[in-house]
Amino acid sequence: MSDVAGSDDHRAVVAANEAFYGAFEAGDMDAMRSVWTHTDRAVCTHPGSPMLRGWTAVERSWQLLLGAPLRPTFILTDVEVDVVGDAAFVTLVENMVVPNGSGVGTAINWFVRDDDRWLMVGHVGAPITREVIG
Amino acid sequence: MSDVAGSDDHRAVVAANEAFYGAFEAGDMDAMRSVWTHTDRAVCTHPGSPMLRGWTAVERSWQLLLGAPLRPTFILTDVEVDVVGDAAFVTLVENMVVPNGSGVGTAINWFVRDDDRWLMVGHVGAPITREVIG
Repeated sequence: MSDVAGSDDHRAVVAANEAFYGAFEAGDMDAMRSVWTHTDRAVCTHPGSPMLRGWTAVERSWQLLLGAPLRPTFILTDVEVDVVGDAAFVTLVENMVVPNGSGVGTAINWFVRDDDRWLMVGHVGAPITREVIG
Repeated sequence: MSDVAGSDDHRAVVAANEAFYGAFEAGDMDAMRSVWTHTDRAVCTHPGSPMLRGWTAVERSWQLLLGAPLRPTFILTDVEVDVVGDAAFVTLVENMVVPNGSGVGTAINWFVRDDDRWLMVGHVGAPITREVIG
């Protein structure tokens, strides 16, 4: 890794990533808006779904998901943060618990520094449907 | 986007991304090795599969996939490149054609500049299993 786990950048990216999942769990659309870049470069792929480009489409998808009656609780495992200058990649495993079941998937969240804030530019959630490669 | 479509960096990242799919289509393990960083920071999630960390695990997965008798041909659409200093994100739609069928998924490929080369640090392929979000 090019960053140091104890560095300010590393901590700030971890905090931005946690703010994303916190907003999701709380169904807090204002908090979700404050996590993301509000630009055309925003990219979001929800598990199993087509890719959404641009903040207008991404925001609409979060309004739909955060308005659902059953939101997941996340237990994040295997979290790795890779900071490269003004860009950062966070990869992790999302262990999701919902009242009617549970699931596991992987995610890549990427962030870009904007002045002194790290804004989410992309999120891809990928479902795990098998234990082996191929 | 923070980069300019006609810039040298943009072109170099597009070339690195095309080299990745070219190696996959050709089943050329040497070419695949030359695309990737050979470090612990390498991350790869094949569609539907768990996340692999580190070049040793990632390399093994490609040896398995490139050695398969039926490899896909890719038609890449909706390709966007976002260069942020020494990091670059490529998002796209993978339209895969194989002799016994076809499929569509999204991918995020990320690259980091190493001296004057752009090396792949991560690849996540996410299957599209439905047309709508939720």
